[in-house]
Amino acid sequence: MTDATVIFTPSGKRGRFAIGTPILTAARQLGVDLDSVCGGRGICSKCQITPSYGEFSKFGVTVDQDALSEWNAVEQRYKDIRGLIDGRRLGCQAKVMGDVIVDVPPESQVHKQVIRKSASARDMVMDPATRAYFVTVEQPDMHEPSGDFERLKAALAREWGIADVTADLALLRRLQPALRRGEWSVTVVLNKGNHDATHRILDIFPGFHEGALYGLAIDLGSTTIAAHLCNLSDGAVLASAGVMNPQIRFGEDLMSRVSYVMMNEGGDVEMTSVVRAAIATLASSISAEAGIDPRAIYEVVFVCNPVMHHLLLGIDPVELGQAPFALAASESLSLDGADLDITTINPAARAYILPCIAGHVGADAAAVALSEEPNKSNDMVLIVDVGTNAEILLGNKTRVLACSSPTGPAFEGAQISSGQRAAPGAIERVQIDPVTKEPRFSVIGCDKWSDEDGFAEATAQMGVTGICGSGIIEAVAELRMAGLLDQGGLIGGPDQTGSARCIPEGRTHAYILHDGTAQGGPLITVTQGDIRAIQLAKAALYAGAKLLMDEMGVEKVDRVVLAGAFGAHISPKHAMVLGMIPDVPLDKVISAGNAAGTGARMALASNSARDTIEEVVRHIHKVETAIEPRFQEHFVNASAIPNAVDTFPELGMVVSLPDVSFNTSGAGSAGRRRRG
Amino acid sequence: MTDATVIFTPSGKRGRFAIGTPILTAARQLGVDLDSVCGGRGICSKCQITPSYGEFSKFGVTVDQDALSEWNAVEQRYKDIRGLIDGRRLGCQAKVMGDVIVDVPPESQVHKQVIRKSASARDMVMDPATRAYFVTVEQPDMHEPSGDFERLKAALAREWGIADVTADLALLRRLQPALRRGEWSVTVVLNKGNHDATHRILDIFPGFHEGALYGLAIDLGSTTIAAHLCNLSDGAVLASAGVMNPQIRFGEDLMSRVSYVMMNEGGDVEMTSVVRAAIATLASSISAEAGIDPRAIYEVVFVCNPVMHHLLLGIDPVELGQAPFALAASESLSLDGADLDITTINPAARAYILPCIAGHVGADAAAVALSEEPNKSNDMVLIVDVGTNAEILLGNKTRVLACSSPTGPAFEGAQISSGQRAAPGAIERVQIDPVTKEPRFSVIGCDKWSDEDGFAEATAQMGVTGICGSGIIEAVAELRMAGLLDQGGLIGGPDQTGSARCIPEGRTHAYILHDGTAQGGPLITVTQGDIRAIQLAKAALYAGAKLLMDEMGVEKVDRVVLAGAFGAHISPKHAMVLGMIPDVPLDKVISAGNAAGTGARMALASNSARDTIEEVVRHIHKVETAIEPRFQEHFVNASAIPNAVDTFPELGMVVSLPDVSFNTSGAGSAGRRRRG
Repeated sequence: MTDATVIFTPSGKRGRFAIGTPILTAARQLGVDLDSVCGGRGICSKCQITPSYGEFSKFGVTVDQDALSEWNAVEQRYKDIRGLIDGRRLGCQAKVMGDVIVDVPPESQVHKQVIRKSASARDMVMDPATRAYFVTVEQPDMHEPSGDFERLKAALAREWGIADVTADLALLRRLQPALRRGEWSVTVVLNKGNHDATHRILDIFPGFHEGALYGLAIDLGSTTIAAHLCNLSDGAVLASAGVMNPQIRFGEDLMSRVSYVMMNEGGDVEMTSVVRAAIATLASSISAEAGIDPRAIYEVVFVCNPVMHHLLLGIDPVELGQAPFALAASESLSLDGADLDITTINPAARAYILPCIAGHVGADAAAVALSEEPNKSNDMVLIVDVGTNAEILLGNKTRVLACSSPTGPAFEGAQISSGQRAAPGAIERVQIDPVTKEPRFSVIGCDKWSDEDGFAEATAQMGVTGICGSGIIEAVAELRMAGLLDQGGLIGGPDQTGSARCIPEGRTHAYILHDGTAQGGPLITVTQGDIRAIQLAKAALYAGAKLLMDEMGVEKVDRVVLAGAFGAHISPKHAMVLGMIPDVPLDKVISAGNAAGTGARMALASNSARDTIEEVVRHIHKVETAIEPRFQEHFVNASAIPNAVDTFPELGMVVSLPDVSFNTSGAGSAGRRRRG
Repeated sequence: MTDATVIFTPSGKRGRFAIGTPILTAARQLGVDLDSVCGGRGICSKCQITPSYGEFSKFGVTVDQDALSEWNAVEQRYKDIRGLIDGRRLGCQAKVMGDVIVDVPPESQVHKQVIRKSASARDMVMDPATRAYFVTVEQPDMHEPSGDFERLKAALAREWGIADVTADLALLRRLQPALRRGEWSVTVVLNKGNHDATHRILDIFPGFHEGALYGLAIDLGSTTIAAHLCNLSDGAVLASAGVMNPQIRFGEDLMSRVSYVMMNEGGDVEMTSVVRAAIATLASSISAEAGIDPRAIYEVVFVCNPVMHHLLLGIDPVELGQAPFALAASESLSLDGADLDITTINPAARAYILPCIAGHVGADAAAVALSEEPNKSNDMVLIVDVGTNAEILLGNKTRVLACSSPTGPAFEGAQISSGQRAAPGAIERVQIDPVTKEPRFSVIGCDKWSDEDGFAEATAQMGVTGICGSGIIEAVAELRMAGLLDQGGLIGGPDQTGSARCIPEGRTHAYILHDGTAQGGPLITVTQGDIRAIQLAKAALYAGAKLLMDEMGVEKVDRVVLAGAFGAHISPKHAMVLGMIPDVPLDKVISAGNAAGTGARMALASNSARDTIEEVVRHIHKVETAIEPRFQEHFVNASAIPNAVDTFPELGMVVSLPDVSFNTSGAGSAGRRRRG
């Protein structure tokens, strides 16, 4: 026998190969997706495979025990040092000796699928822009003179079929010592983004480099900067971390930052500088948290709203503050990390910034679209990403609309009298008994409710410090359901509500949620001002959704997806009581978690995800809320808190809200009924 | 009549066009090379054409006086402000009204030929990487939101057919203000080098930008840095300037600089820094000299030897100091000017560095090959570029060989006792009367010989200050022809030569060329040490040429081209008397001037010239002198100054050198006869 059949699973690809052909070679010839960094030298162990033995009528072959060459010293050495699952072989060492069926486990595939944990989320395929390659370079010969770089390129072409390689001066400077220290074998880190014509060498190591390659997916919000540190070969998240956006000191919301630039010469430069410094510091701290060398970070992907986009890039955002809200650049951008002063990671690292959809609908909304795929939905889905601005997408596989709505930071606990960030000690869940009007609540960092035994002890150390975004939404909704709040949003006085917790505050009232003053803690109340802030925020959100529904010509949506770091914590029932989102059966309200961050991770993991979102964005129709008269109309109509909400079938009940109306001297009835 | 024939000269292209078609439109449709920056708006005047009237039997057409639309207000306005040659029309304004013959003058062609002045040199075709384009960009529409950059790209595609445009962050930052100040019309400077996949925007100006675009062609030598400031649209040289290479303080020649790096940690960084600073200063001063804004310099092309190449790039040159003399990178490089710290020119300027041929044969030799085209020669041509190193090319259209030879700086007046740079006051021509043994000479900056009336007055101010490279070569050759020097290179004493000018100096003799001490000037002598330095330099040069002739298998060459800034001034007769170059009829010795600089200018003017030299370099066979035993052999044999040289037909004489041999105590006979 001079040749034999090799069948790969799960691909089903098969071919006949000469006896003695390494499995890795057979896989390459058939185009089977079998990983390798060292190019078949038995170093990297990326090409692990599992042979199957026995009779396989399905494939029409019988695999004998000696179908592969014997377990060899290279494999034994690898197993001794690193370990190898029983039954596994190294594809570069195991040679064809007879008909054989070879399984390629997921972790040995380059384009491995990453199954995401959340049921609502999409799976993700690895197709990273950055990969490592081990090559052996020919030594210089003065009779055939050529540069070391040219011989490195020849080696990459010969061993890996990569013919289009470039390098910058910084890399060329390091090339000769690396080649000589590695005795003419080096590991190079190559990057080719989805728009690049060439592979660029980001890094070079003498010999075989064991270290993994990492990337950062950064969701650059107006209020917080959230980063995920990911392994570029399997997409695994090693650490997630966030910091406050230091630009907050120039203005809480985006428009106040744009105003700051208009009023202060060089204000944009100042804001660019502080946000870049915060990103560099975050990159450094997240690396420390994960215990990796930050120089192993070779890529950063950014999603952000348009104003943050421009301020990150160092572009004056003033045009975004006035009609027609022209972006300087809307398409995706591929840059050097150094262009963004991310000095703490690999100096050659690349940055990819997702495309913006419009002057008010940013790359964060694009990332949500990438993650949540409204363009592939059969039913009409409304996707709401709640942050300081709300990004709203509405559509299905036929058409997708997008807008943004200036909700302000109230949903994030800012501009709320007892508001705070979601951190230990913050009230995140609230219930108010409709009969006694007494509250119970839970705080972040404690799994007991406030009326349960042991709550005081459990929270003694951290205290009950304030209310976070989800807490204030629940509190307002519960106040309404308990009849303490009228449809216009006024808090009733103790005489009107029969609750001593409704205390006068100026000419209006506040509701005492928790009095910690006896323990030296704060008095946590929900004030009339807090209610107004939430009303404005929720009205803006609702009006944006309604505007898209008008544009789409639909009266209702089939499904609501709540996204945003905060979306994960909103109680759908309370959101609907408040009138934040259009009515939809409660089981059709899904939390997608940090969908923008997920979109950023997908773009980090995959060039084809970048292609996808760039294409999708081109077909999203943008609706501009700022100049649309109907937006104002919807906004005014939506500021009231309605009287009745829909059936919550899974709760087996209809939530009926009392038709009360309070009068407080000096505070007029601000709301009108939302529904006719 | 609804259409008419339009014939363009000199291309001969013709076609029929609807009445009313602008000539520029007709030219574009036929692919006629007719320039335009403003895209037909009557602003730039680049599309000037000359119609011919009358009967043209050759073309079979008769052109009436009304074959073009009438002279219009746009043309009159342009003529009033800028002037227009009589008979000229603007191609964008003149419309086809009948059959017409239109001549495109050379200055209206994009790819205009630049005829070089020297008969020996090649013409050059303009095909610049950098050009300006005027475009009108659509205004933003919030209902069809897209970035200003994306609309600029769309305008370039629509108006100029340029579909692949990129910009860096610095440009994006300036985009929005420029568009608005220009009321949505801007001039962009686009660059696309011969290896680039895209056009990159280097600059943007509101409205139509009148200014020309410039480039620098820099010949970065070990001793001097020479720059030509060129107009990128017609190749014209506005100014040429040179400065000393400040690296000289780290070592006169290349190997001493490599040694400096080996001996001093950070020595390469130091040398890179000083040479880059000198280049930046030179760019600034040459701009001032030409009276242009240095920010209008958008490209820099470099030619240099390999050690300078690495030191310019910031690459440690240590590998070039030892076999196998491996270059870090040998192919051409396209970089940002900023990568090379050329901070004085446009911050977005690009740099192109010609390919190196081998570890000892640099981009300067490549530039000489581009300029002098040995690869297209029918006869066997030897090209010698004399500097601190000599680059030597030998070949014809079948095969080209190259080597470099370490001549040292003697030919440049360095290491010569009275040596100096070629500057006013330097002796550049020397004659010695064979009978009286008395010298006469001329100096740079004065057109009289030293024995002519008025010489003293003419040189009174600058003085006679020293001997430059060409002066020392002539002096040594003349000493030999006058019988004052034997074939071994020894200067005879006054008793042996009968000349009181041969004065003792230590144990040898020196020849007094000029005694200016009475006027407070220097005593200018040619010492025995000077003779030895010239002997070593010319032996190295000759040995290199001979080595290539051995490799080529030829006993003689048909033609010698002397290149280098210095090559322009070498007297062929004296070069041959000295034995610097192989024997060849004197009329076959041609001076090509600064061929490396010319090659640099060609690469600056033309992407196709870059393609050409990259291709030619791949086919040049490199010969390494440093390890070739025959080089040493040739070197030793070539140190003598021969007894007789060939006939100089155009001088109608044979130069016979006396067969003398002097003995000076302590100085042995250093030379052996070169020819058998």
